[in-house]
Amino acid sequence: MTHKIAILGASGYTGAELVRLIAEHPNMEITALAAERKAGLLMAQVFPHLRHLDLPQLCKISEIDFDQVDLCFCALPHKTSQEVIRALPKSLKIVDLSADFRLRDGADYEQWYGNPHTALEQQEEAVYGLTEFYRDEIRAARLVAGTGCNAATGQYVLRPLITAGVIDLDDIILDLKCAVSGAGRSLKENLLHAELSEGTNAYAVGGTHRHLGEFDQEFSKLAGRTVHIQFTPHLIPANRGILATTYVRGDAQSIQDTLVTAYENEPFIKVLPFGETPSTHHVRGSNFCHIGVVADRIERRAIVVAALDNLTKGSSGQALQNANLMLGEVETRGLMMAPLFP
Amino acid sequence: MTHKIAILGASGYTGAELVRLIAEHPNMEITALAAERKAGLLMAQVFPHLRHLDLPQLCKISEIDFDQVDLCFCALPHKTSQEVIRALPKSLKIVDLSADFRLRDGADYEQWYGNPHTALEQQEEAVYGLTEFYRDEIRAARLVAGTGCNAATGQYVLRPLITAGVIDLDDIILDLKCAVSGAGRSLKENLLHAELSEGTNAYAVGGTHRHLGEFDQEFSKLAGRTVHIQFTPHLIPANRGILATTYVRGDAQSIQDTLVTAYENEPFIKVLPFGETPSTHHVRGSNFCHIGVVADRIERRAIVVAALDNLTKGSSGQALQNANLMLGEVETRGLMMAPLFP
Amino acid sequence: MTHKIAILGASGYTGAELVRLIAEHPNMEITALAAERKAGLLMAQVFPHLRHLDLPQLCKISEIDFDQVDLCFCALPHKTSQEVIRALPKSLKIVDLSADFRLRDGADYEQWYGNPHTALEQQEEAVYGLTEFYRDEIRAARLVAGTGCNAATGQYVLRPLITAGVIDLDDIILDLKCAVSGAGRSLKENLLHAELSEGTNAYAVGGTHRHLGEFDQEFSKLAGRTVHIQFTPHLIPANRGILATTYVRGDAQSIQDTLVTAYENEPFIKVLPFGETPSTHHVRGSNFCHIGVVADRIERRAIVVAALDNLTKGSSGQALQNANLMLGEVETRGLMMAPLFP
Amino acid sequence: MTHKIAILGASGYTGAELVRLIAEHPNMEITALAAERKAGLLMAQVFPHLRHLDLPQLCKISEIDFDQVDLCFCALPHKTSQEVIRALPKSLKIVDLSADFRLRDGADYEQWYGNPHTALEQQEEAVYGLTEFYRDEIRAARLVAGTGCNAATGQYVLRPLITAGVIDLDDIILDLKCAVSGAGRSLKENLLHAELSEGTNAYAVGGTHRHLGEFDQEFSKLAGRTVHIQFTPHLIPANRGILATTYVRGDAQSIQDTLVTAYENEPFIKVLPFGETPSTHHVRGSNFCHIGVVADRIERRAIVVAALDNLTKGSSGQALQNANLMLGEVETRGLMMAPLFP
Repeated sequence: MTHKIAILGASGYTGAELVRLIAEHPNMEITALAAERKAGLLMAQVFPHLRHLDLPQLCKISEIDFDQVDLCFCALPHKTSQEVIRALPKSLKIVDLSADFRLRDGADYEQWYGNPHTALEQQEEAVYGLTEFYRDEIRAARLVAGTGCNAATGQYVLRPLITAGVIDLDDIILDLKCAVSGAGRSLKENLLHAELSEGTNAYAVGGTHRHLGEFDQEFSKLAGRTVHIQFTPHLIPANRGILATTYVRGDAQSIQDTLVTAYENEPFIKVLPFGETPSTHHVRGSNFCHIGVVADRIERRAIVVAALDNLTKGSSGQALQNANLMLGEVETRGLMMAPLFP
Repeated sequence: MTHKIAILGASGYTGAELVRLIAEHPNMEITALAAERKAGLLMAQVFPHLRHLDLPQLCKISEIDFDQVDLCFCALPHKTSQEVIRALPKSLKIVDLSADFRLRDGADYEQWYGNPHTALEQQEEAVYGLTEFYRDEIRAARLVAGTGCNAATGQYVLRPLITAGVIDLDDIILDLKCAVSGAGRSLKENLLHAELSEGTNAYAVGGTHRHLGEFDQEFSKLAGRTVHIQFTPHLIPANRGILATTYVRGDAQSIQDTLVTAYENEPFIKVLPFGETPSTHHVRGSNFCHIGVVADRIERRAIVVAALDNLTKGSSGQALQNANLMLGEVETRGLMMAPLFP
Repeated sequence: MTHKIAILGASGYTGAELVRLIAEHPNMEITALAAERKAGLLMAQVFPHLRHLDLPQLCKISEIDFDQVDLCFCALPHKTSQEVIRALPKSLKIVDLSADFRLRDGADYEQWYGNPHTALEQQEEAVYGLTEFYRDEIRAARLVAGTGCNAATGQYVLRPLITAGVIDLDDIILDLKCAVSGAGRSLKENLLHAELSEGTNAYAVGGTHRHLGEFDQEFSKLAGRTVHIQFTPHLIPANRGILATTYVRGDAQSIQDTLVTAYENEPFIKVLPFGETPSTHHVRGSNFCHIGVVADRIERRAIVVAALDNLTKGSSGQALQNANLMLGEVETRGLMMAPLFP
Repeated sequence: MTHKIAILGASGYTGAELVRLIAEHPNMEITALAAERKAGLLMAQVFPHLRHLDLPQLCKISEIDFDQVDLCFCALPHKTSQEVIRALPKSLKIVDLSADFRLRDGADYEQWYGNPHTALEQQEEAVYGLTEFYRDEIRAARLVAGTGCNAATGQYVLRPLITAGVIDLDDIILDLKCAVSGAGRSLKENLLHAELSEGTNAYAVGGTHRHLGEFDQEFSKLAGRTVHIQFTPHLIPANRGILATTYVRGDAQSIQDTLVTAYENEPFIKVLPFGETPSTHHVRGSNFCHIGVVADRIERRAIVVAALDNLTKGSSGQALQNANLMLGEVETRGLMMAPLFP
């Protein structure tokens, strides 16, 4: 059986990444690609790397017959996404890649995003899309909220450790190195090659990055108390990849054991041998997340480093993994390709 | 039916790329991975991006039982390759990725490579591996010689034009921009990040690059007369990709028509609409080659630009395409993945 | 004596490069920095790398008292530049970095730039700013038109060869590799890091790049007949640098000798030993241009390769060199810094 | 008066950087350039970016007449450096860029570097070269030990804070992002462009990086008690630059005030306005260090970020700054050039 797929927001990087992945999926067919400002164009004009594929022409959302769609990916900017999704058929299966349905609480949303939520009903219904931890809920969900790419990376490190109680909850520092595609195909000065290549800088320093909303929500829920981590992202001159360096307090070997146990049956999360750390080079273009644990020379301190591809495991790959579950497909279908190196 | 595959020279980039591709092939299984100096290691130690795969440990060539191998890829340095292949079972199907069997003539080999050929018998038997032009021979071959990555790119542009007689044979200039992985995983000063990033330079200027041996052989054979082109490669600060800018004399529209006709049924060669030119960004990690034709403002001069990924279509992807033919598989199997962009 | 300097268009890359260079000049002082949309800001807010300098606040052009200015650099977009310069005091010394005064002929300008010239009087007065070839005129000029960065690179190779009559004028191909800062600090999709890094492509293929206007004008004037070259620029993933690979017909040794003689007393143009070619890595951030000549294996064909930094020798360094002449300063003052490598 | 300068180890990046800087110094002349394995070559053959300079031919150390040398820079590998320096004239002024004389204690040296020190007499005499904090000692020194580039960056952040007692000494985390030139011009697989570009990874995780020896020594001395920080370096795909993200506990405003006061008269250390953070892009090629302080959302936690160029302020620029002091020159001479951006 072939599932009919629509992608809204097909002219952005996560939209293109969805097309790349679905093209290899044996049981999915893309029947609609929407991009409001580029409606009428061919996908090959917007993304020439998809030239070899037989794809529908870009259209406006209003032109899509959703009766002919089994599942819809929304790869739209936040705020737009909630407005669009509110107006979609209430029975349509949706995987949203925006930030709009990640936070369970309307007030939290407004605090982090600066505008009131306009689709509170859908927000209530949405399931948080971190597959490995919400698998059953996602399988049953109609609307799944894809996580932030930074938020996914940090959670892969920290969730098992918080649950197992092996780290100090009041002393967690997450230092992220993020490639530039996480910022999308937007025309901003700091995303220009001339501004970005050959250097690095921190941004959203001091606890202002919006993905903290997800960390606060999820970690506090897990711990049964308020957990606030320190989180500083840095922009590195690369196109894909997030490296999360996590500084925690606890016994490194227990941390290693906890992660090994937590992920031993997970197809995409690979815990490295104790003492080794991963590189973003080695997950590029794939749905894998590599995690490594090292004991610091200072007692009871450990460094846990995770690497994933922000566009794949951090966004569109995760979305497809969730869609597989929602459609009764094998979870890993279309997602087992090896990383591209070098 | 699953074909048992051995890869000799698994610790280099083309070896790793073969593993990446074959991992997705439904009818191939890697049963041996040889790397003399790294024998005993796991592939994950040499190429952590392949960590998720269940692969045989690296071994020495002498440890392989070739009776249990259906096809062997040789991704060894030239000169080593001929020595190894000479000693392999005479019935074993082999795709060689080195330069050792590309030239039909022993004297040509010695001229371009500086040492006498030591496996002339196998050289005689070998079929030149440019799939689109030697398909039938490859299907019947025991030993296929993979082409040079630069040589493949230039031939995709020029072969149909030479055959059709639409360009002046005495006035062909090929200006190549090559990413660094073409030089392999070798420890050379000019391949260091600090020496290469943020700049570009020509190399092997003046007609000294060894891939000219292939151009001379193939173009002269096609034309029935000696054809010598000018060829200048440049190193660009990127890991994958070759962009070939070809300056020819002839009618641009006829050139376009010739290329469109030549490649209209080819699954991997995409001729762009007249007047458009390709980018290496849009073929990265894929087996596609994009070609574009533009008329110059000067009459009867045209620029033809081709882009492909040197490690895939230029080397390991081509090798797998040939192996598919040699094993009676569908030619495109395991090779239709979309490029990785950005 | 300290010359008072104004820079109009200080918020672009060539403006910032002028500030960088002038900061080291012992006899120049920047007294006004204009940037219409960023007026009121500090230069450190627009270009934090200039934070250590004591610079005037950004202002509007209309706020500058030009009586207090000895020389004015205009680093404005073309079309804007002619409008601004038309309105400046008629006695003010000006070095214009835009395209507006490069072409001697109003019709040529309109053909290449698509709009009629609105300052024909100033156009007539302007001297073409390729210092090494217009030194005396520049010394006496009031208004000097900085050359295109690509146009400068190509001319350093070709002018002496055309003058000496050592190459075939009907068979000149210029294949350029250009870093991205040549396109300025403009928000265009193709200049994003995610679109540009790790790949390369041709642009303005077929003879449509505007710098051809300069080549046509200058080469035809030199030759006393129409000379039309083929010129194809390529965007490479680097921030600074132009590499010009020039394919010409003639005796390579004569070409080498001609270039050595032409440039033997030039402080910034370095002709390499015969057979060597330059790299953009080795001129970055400097006012030097390296040129190398190689004989092709095909008789009477030569490849000449030149490298310079588009922002320095190709633009702001050239502008300062010209300003030195116009102000009676030593031509090399403030310009002898070594390139930055790696 | 012109000081005669010798550079030992001229074929490495710090050697070349010294030449670049000294070339602009009005009162220094390079009279000897030693590079054992490249003796006999011209500097232009080893570093073509220095082609325009009139430099002595590379020689062996044994060929240098040290009576004709006022000051000698040693840019040799550690271990080699101590052997060479032990044999140099005892009256010769020396700035050593290696690790050999940074640690005051022979046992500490052996612990971090794995071999016993063979020049303990010189080790005793050596002054630690962090100019801003050892200015008077350096002025009087014969032998100055240049600091590690990472060690310098971390100390610029932390020394004033430790001295002022405004941070918790038991809770300091230093997460560094280091460009690749810090590893020198050495042929290592992980320094290849193909291995490094487009990704990032941690290394020496857990407190094993040798620069910790310097941190331990200096911070403990300052604090009058043992201070051990956590320090994790990461390799980023860039050629120059170190970004140090420091996580400390204390009042952010007090931290800002402490840094502002500490550095208000320093020519090269620039403390940004409170709440802003620096970028390595904005110090490239210069001797400046930018530092920014941000308060975290969690009370009494602050993030302090510092950026400098590892080859300039982190190594050769620092060395020249120290040499200026040792020779009675103005400290900033030859070092005030602006960073190169973009």
